[in-house]
Amino acid sequence: MPKSAATKTSSKSKKKTKKQKSAGAGAGGPGVGGGAAARPASKAYGKLVAELREAAVLHSVQATLAWDQETVMPSAASGLRAEQLQMLSAMVHERRTSKRLRSLIGEAEADKKVRKDGVASANLREIRRDFRLLTRVPTELVAEMARSSSLGMAAWKEARAKSDFGMFLPWLKKTVELNRKKAKHLGKPKGGKELYDALLDLYEPGMTAARTEAIFTPLRARLAPLIARVGGAPRKPDTGPAHLASDIERQKKLVHEVTAAIGFDLEGGRIDESAHPFCESPGPGDTRFTNRYRPDGWADAVFTALHEAGHGLYEQGLPKGEHFGQPIADAISLGIHESQSRMWENLVGRSRAFWEWATPLARKTLGGGASSLTAEGVHRAVNAVEAGFIRIESDEVTYNLHIMLRFDLERAMIAGDLDPADLPAVWNRRMKEDLGLTVPEDRLGCLQDVHWSMGMMGYFPTYTFGNLYAAQFWEAMARALPERDAMMARGEFGPILAWLRANIHAHGRRYGAEELCELVTGAPLSADPLVRHLEAKIKAVYGV
Amino acid sequence: MPKSAATKTSSKSKKKTKKQKSAGAGAGGPGVGGGAAARPASKAYGKLVAELREAAVLHSVQATLAWDQETVMPSAASGLRAEQLQMLSAMVHERRTSKRLRSLIGEAEADKKVRKDGVASANLREIRRDFRLLTRVPTELVAEMARSSSLGMAAWKEARAKSDFGMFLPWLKKTVELNRKKAKHLGKPKGGKELYDALLDLYEPGMTAARTEAIFTPLRARLAPLIARVGGAPRKPDTGPAHLASDIERQKKLVHEVTAAIGFDLEGGRIDESAHPFCESPGPGDTRFTNRYRPDGWADAVFTALHEAGHGLYEQGLPKGEHFGQPIADAISLGIHESQSRMWENLVGRSRAFWEWATPLARKTLGGGASSLTAEGVHRAVNAVEAGFIRIESDEVTYNLHIMLRFDLERAMIAGDLDPADLPAVWNRRMKEDLGLTVPEDRLGCLQDVHWSMGMMGYFPTYTFGNLYAAQFWEAMARALPERDAMMARGEFGPILAWLRANIHAHGRRYGAEELCELVTGAPLSADPLVRHLEAKIKAVYGV
Repeated sequence: MPKSAATKTSSKSKKKTKKQKSAGAGAGGPGVGGGAAARPASKAYGKLVAELREAAVLHSVQATLAWDQETVMPSAASGLRAEQLQMLSAMVHERRTSKRLRSLIGEAEADKKVRKDGVASANLREIRRDFRLLTRVPTELVAEMARSSSLGMAAWKEARAKSDFGMFLPWLKKTVELNRKKAKHLGKPKGGKELYDALLDLYEPGMTAARTEAIFTPLRARLAPLIARVGGAPRKPDTGPAHLASDIERQKKLVHEVTAAIGFDLEGGRIDESAHPFCESPGPGDTRFTNRYRPDGWADAVFTALHEAGHGLYEQGLPKGEHFGQPIADAISLGIHESQSRMWENLVGRSRAFWEWATPLARKTLGGGASSLTAEGVHRAVNAVEAGFIRIESDEVTYNLHIMLRFDLERAMIAGDLDPADLPAVWNRRMKEDLGLTVPEDRLGCLQDVHWSMGMMGYFPTYTFGNLYAAQFWEAMARALPERDAMMARGEFGPILAWLRANIHAHGRRYGAEELCELVTGAPLSADPLVRHLEAKIKAVYGV
Repeated sequence: MPKSAATKTSSKSKKKTKKQKSAGAGAGGPGVGGGAAARPASKAYGKLVAELREAAVLHSVQATLAWDQETVMPSAASGLRAEQLQMLSAMVHERRTSKRLRSLIGEAEADKKVRKDGVASANLREIRRDFRLLTRVPTELVAEMARSSSLGMAAWKEARAKSDFGMFLPWLKKTVELNRKKAKHLGKPKGGKELYDALLDLYEPGMTAARTEAIFTPLRARLAPLIARVGGAPRKPDTGPAHLASDIERQKKLVHEVTAAIGFDLEGGRIDESAHPFCESPGPGDTRFTNRYRPDGWADAVFTALHEAGHGLYEQGLPKGEHFGQPIADAISLGIHESQSRMWENLVGRSRAFWEWATPLARKTLGGGASSLTAEGVHRAVNAVEAGFIRIESDEVTYNLHIMLRFDLERAMIAGDLDPADLPAVWNRRMKEDLGLTVPEDRLGCLQDVHWSMGMMGYFPTYTFGNLYAAQFWEAMARALPERDAMMARGEFGPILAWLRANIHAHGRRYGAEELCELVTGAPLSADPLVRHLEAKIKAVYGV
């Protein structure tokens, strides 16, 4: 249950990542070979990366303004801010889709030296991909989607408040229609068979609906018995310790100490407050995340911070110093980005070992009633499992069921197999089947998420990819760091971060997501590691 | 003495204003007539203001980043920030000096309808001025001055720390040389007779060195006996009440209450902290100032806030809603800008009436030892006069002597009448003559200010113009608001702000500084009102 903030968060931070990048790494690129430093392999290539750096600097300005808007901007400045962001966005788009860029890409591709350089050739593959995707969707459609997103979100807010699906239906229909158009313009990605694939590929490059289904199906099959086991467990955890009242300033101090301990660089970053926590990394030396605090939400504050700091550590670990503006300095995909946040939040933060170290720190820092906290008590409190209606409030086990439901329904809407008018009925049936819950009103059902109102379809699965990649990386890391639990219990997180830096962060978009997964873990993405992790967790907490 | 922060400040905020605008209002334009709203008088004029609005939006981004840099930016982001600002600055410059702009200006000038529209013709006069000034200095010289400013400032910092004038001398020589070059390129402004006039005109449009001298000479003549009188006064104020130790959070609360009471719009603004307080107003709805706090500096914090809020109130009162990007929505000059900050700081904030209202508020808000504060005690404490070496620590009376000294010396250096190598000797002689002080080392003498190291010559006089305009406006306002003291004593500042809005803020650059002064006060700029104000103050505080 203390999942809510962190989960909500990810939507936020990912959304931004998305808006910034608009494309990730292709799965099947020629990849690999060569050292870490990019030596401009040809004159055209040198000019190309210089152009891209300029666009990235301009884009970093946009990102800084986005941060400002969510954290400190005076409310009366919203009109000016919209104008600033629109102008910058147009300028960045112009630079990233220019004829000059097209010809530089062509020239660089014709250069043998570039093809022989591992970094340069990976960069070029991804630069081509970005250029292709950015230039395929007509400007008018992009503009229409932006308008529709802004109006649709307003309509959604009202519809959700009133729990009135009919009010949102025209916008949902429009979203589906515009996304189908967009997918047609984008064209089918490698291995793609349906329109949905083109959308999914924007957020999770190289992934397809069929492949997603192949991964999700066994996951769902194995989560159901797990949830049933929890339901029948005689011993339920007391969630009280996670909700002890404590002073907000003390919570902030705890969050700073925990964040610094896991290695987030505060000389190259900041922690602030915002209603919806997010992480924004404009560029080298500047990675900022936000958190939120409630008097009875100290544990929530820690998990949200671990989640956002996880995004931030990935950004700080990308090779931006040398390669800023090049794909090699960008995140691979939303799924991989989320794997970093979920790893720190769930694999580190919800482990017993973590609380061996963090509980004494929390006792000392929070003071007051927190003096009664025990590692065992906190560990149990923050790992309670209970089916609920709301995705962003759900726990580590049931969370993925919410995602899989959304994946199936949005995929069906894009395919034309599900009429948006039928969404509530289908949604509610699935909630009954998957979670055993009867949805009393659409506010708690199909109207709960902002994504579709903003025109984002193909985005939801990346949350579960994040959980899956996190678990799979975590298992691989355990082989390299057999003493990991003991280290965490001593508050030593350096080796964990070093492993992530070397195996994931340092590569940027050099490899595709599943390609990296195979390189690092020796296997393609699978539901098994996550299921193993959850089974062990439930055994520990529920004794079943 | 509690002047320091506010004074230091002004340099800071003005510098930014300067960098943003680079030109103010010409004194002798055709000016005036017509209503407040700008109806695009011709097609070319409409396009022209649209272009300028784009440049202003882009420039507002620069201003937001500048604010971010001084307040919240992680230290490791400084490299990226320099790159961002350089790129934006080049883009803004390009837009403001484009051939397209030149021809639109020409077309608009040829349009009779524009000439008949009061706002449009004033705008066009100022647009022409800006364009002329921006295009006259060769890009290479601008770049050389930027480099020299950055290196010079670094050298100055070290030279000041070591009190080693020889270390700074080469940079001072270079500054003088580059400023002479710049002045030659700019050409003599209307009424100008010497190179210095071209530099002064950048900061205080329409002002000349000869006119400055004509205003400053009687001011100096009348300040000397005033200071002598203070020196011989039997009764010295106790400055203790201004330095009562008080909690920083309580000081912040007091500053917020005072700032809100004088009318600073916090929905369109913010108050933050920074080492060197400043005010930055990127655009409509966004005006941010910073303050600084020390445990024994509660009064200083109030004056600094009043000073910066004064700059902010001017920015919030400019007609940016409708005219953003047009000169009509810009500040007239640095002197007029400073008049607004000094008025709230000194004329309002150091008045007895203000403290009748503010002392009970301070007692309540600060708590602790502040319960002993009396309006009389605070008023005396914050109006102590004492000659000192450092400009930014000097009081309302001696401050202008520091400025006049700098004006004479920089004017002589630009004219070639003073060899930079002789600066310390001449500086020290003047300090002895004007303030009766023997400068023990250059750190406390000619090495104290940052301005020359940054290449700014012709800037210093605007501080005293600010004091003079403030006093002259204040006298004029008294005729319209005869009950002003009683209102201030009740904490009613609305009528003061309304008067400033209507008489000064609303006009933007429609009139030149002295033209506005005549319109509003019925007389050209004069030393008399300030001297009368200071004489009355000294009478009240020192009884002489």
